[in-house]
Amino acid sequence: MSISASSMAPATGLGEVLQLFRGRPSLTRADVMQLTGLSRSTVNQRLDALLSAALVVPSGEGAPTGGRPASRFTFHHDRGVLLVADIGATGMRVALCDLRGEVRAESARTIDVADGPEPVLGAADEMFRELLTGAGRAAEEVLGIGIDVPGPVDFGSGQVVSPPIMSGWDRYDIPSWFAGRYSCAVLVEKDVNAMAIGEQRSVYPDVRQLLMIKAGTGIGAGMILGGEIYRGADGAAGDIGHIQVTVEDAGAEPVCRCGNVGCVEAYAGGWALVRDLREAGKQVSTVDDAVALVRTGDLVAVRLARRAGRIIGHAIADAVSLINPRVVVLGGQLAGIEEQLFAGIREMVYRRSLPLATRRLEIVATRLDNRSGLIGLALLVADTIFAPDRVEALAAHG
Amino acid sequence: MSISASSMAPATGLGEVLQLFRGRPSLTRADVMQLTGLSRSTVNQRLDALLSAALVVPSGEGAPTGGRPASRFTFHHDRGVLLVADIGATGMRVALCDLRGEVRAESARTIDVADGPEPVLGAADEMFRELLTGAGRAAEEVLGIGIDVPGPVDFGSGQVVSPPIMSGWDRYDIPSWFAGRYSCAVLVEKDVNAMAIGEQRSVYPDVRQLLMIKAGTGIGAGMILGGEIYRGADGAAGDIGHIQVTVEDAGAEPVCRCGNVGCVEAYAGGWALVRDLREAGKQVSTVDDAVALVRTGDLVAVRLARRAGRIIGHAIADAVSLINPRVVVLGGQLAGIEEQLFAGIREMVYRRSLPLATRRLEIVATRLDNRSGLIGLALLVADTIFAPDRVEALAAHG
Repeated sequence: MSISASSMAPATGLGEVLQLFRGRPSLTRADVMQLTGLSRSTVNQRLDALLSAALVVPSGEGAPTGGRPASRFTFHHDRGVLLVADIGATGMRVALCDLRGEVRAESARTIDVADGPEPVLGAADEMFRELLTGAGRAAEEVLGIGIDVPGPVDFGSGQVVSPPIMSGWDRYDIPSWFAGRYSCAVLVEKDVNAMAIGEQRSVYPDVRQLLMIKAGTGIGAGMILGGEIYRGADGAAGDIGHIQVTVEDAGAEPVCRCGNVGCVEAYAGGWALVRDLREAGKQVSTVDDAVALVRTGDLVAVRLARRAGRIIGHAIADAVSLINPRVVVLGGQLAGIEEQLFAGIREMVYRRSLPLATRRLEIVATRLDNRSGLIGLALLVADTIFAPDRVEALAAHG
Repeated sequence: MSISASSMAPATGLGEVLQLFRGRPSLTRADVMQLTGLSRSTVNQRLDALLSAALVVPSGEGAPTGGRPASRFTFHHDRGVLLVADIGATGMRVALCDLRGEVRAESARTIDVADGPEPVLGAADEMFRELLTGAGRAAEEVLGIGIDVPGPVDFGSGQVVSPPIMSGWDRYDIPSWFAGRYSCAVLVEKDVNAMAIGEQRSVYPDVRQLLMIKAGTGIGAGMILGGEIYRGADGAAGDIGHIQVTVEDAGAEPVCRCGNVGCVEAYAGGWALVRDLREAGKQVSTVDDAVALVRTGDLVAVRLARRAGRIIGHAIADAVSLINPRVVVLGGQLAGIEEQLFAGIREMVYRRSLPLATRRLEIVATRLDNRSGLIGLALLVADTIFAPDRVEALAAHG
């Protein structure tokens, strides 16, 4: 119940004024006065500081002409760039974004995350440098970096913690690796959390309870609860792939990568799908191969995909009962076989969860291709570097 | 990303100043100046308003003597009272609380919630009147009422929605029923949410992720996530009793009250325990009878209690994997057999959830007897009636 002095300071500093510009195309001085309740002289002072730091610039329509001062101002989203890398188990996507978080250039590469942090981060930085060169930007113009990984993260320190599939990464300090190469903030997030942020902010801005399911090599969940990303007490929230499920026609319960038996992902993860297809004599070696086979209509593959849908659906039904989301978004490589998965997912959710929790529920595939993670990272980085308590410093140091 | 003008107003109105007093034993004028950054004259103005509304009073140690003005002030927690009722499936507890939310008097009665809202609320009001009379308080001194029920609630409107076991209550408007009898705010909350609030605020104030399990006639969960009560998109969050579980030695899956089969509560809820004991030839008719029989050491009853622990533990393990709480608190009638339940619960949670999610996890029984719901309700009502935007009106109308 205690309130500290700082939380009660008038919330109309430089950072809050910049925040107004970030959310809108452009504003006049009068707009800022009206939105903040600040006096004309204080607004002028704040705007001068933001203009001289080039965080805000005169906007096109009202730019100064023939000696008249500018009347409209806009957030200077090209004042610098953001670099983001979405690191998966077997592939990596990187992007160069503007300060609104919009992707300006991107590239992708096959990797093996189990090669360990140095080779993987080295590859990410190589791709970053190519994107910077291509965009005609210098490393000094990078204002923030965001990295996501397929494992639990201690968000505060940027360390990967106890990742089941990322050998060599436990407690690895990703921000320190970048600190010698760039002088800017470096954030590390769990992949599916970045995806949840990207989906909610760009597709479902009015939804305050969103469950993001990444069905790729493994299966994980990211959650927006009460409008904010929810990470849990240890950064371990959303571990939906290791919920135990009942499968009627399964025979012996399969062993999971986590050491347990009967986990959702041991039946329905991409790696399990590849295993089962190979056991059935199919020539597949990657999750993409498995997805491609399902899409050809191969009967064995389609049957396994439908079963995977029911099993993922069982876990989603549990999550719906527990957190009562408004929207469930499915992404990851297996979203490429959404037709087969969704029948099973919907069947289980509507069968298992109470009507109150499902009558307004939407279950949808991502509309952001494979970019929800990159977009989420860029927005998270932008929010962090333009947080009110950082903007003063940013303005002071140019 | 937009910020409204109102959210940027200086956060140092009457309500915020009162908030400082609510969280502390007493404060001087200088304390208030330091905590808020407000000038002496503004602090005097705010204090005068709170003093004349009798929301703040001079405190004992520094009370005015011999013409000297008071130097210390304290929240006037006896300026009025709060009434709260914790309505269960088969019993009801009510309390009269002071404005800090502390219980001053309470009573309990056996009811059947399926009798419908009018008889049950009538009984609650009868008990309220007895407590008021006993405390020498008038109905006009009641500043807020809180009611919790064993079913989903639309917290905004105070309506019970689609309650599986509360026939006649669907969409019933509880606040309207009280509106003719008292002139104060009336809040309605789901029982296990009130319990979660009570536990977190009075026992685990530093814990921001708390999972409250009520194991009584049915089984439900309440969640504090990010420090706040989490209700979900439709008030249906925490429906842990209807997660489907695998039970190895179960034979045919039992039918649940919800119409599904294989739900946690169809195996391990109080009603299922009574059913199974009767099938085993035991003379029990209520959940309390079943708990008493387990406590005598009856072998059949103990075996069923341990199995119930493993099944509840399976559901808790799923919830731990998904929301990664810091503390799990077990309450409700079955907490009376915690010894038998906890072995099974801990076994399943530590077997099923990832080490990262369990290494700091505490699994504990409630320390608040059966009062966590009453305490949570009183705190929720106090927070609501003393919310900053309400205090101005409270002070204006005396």
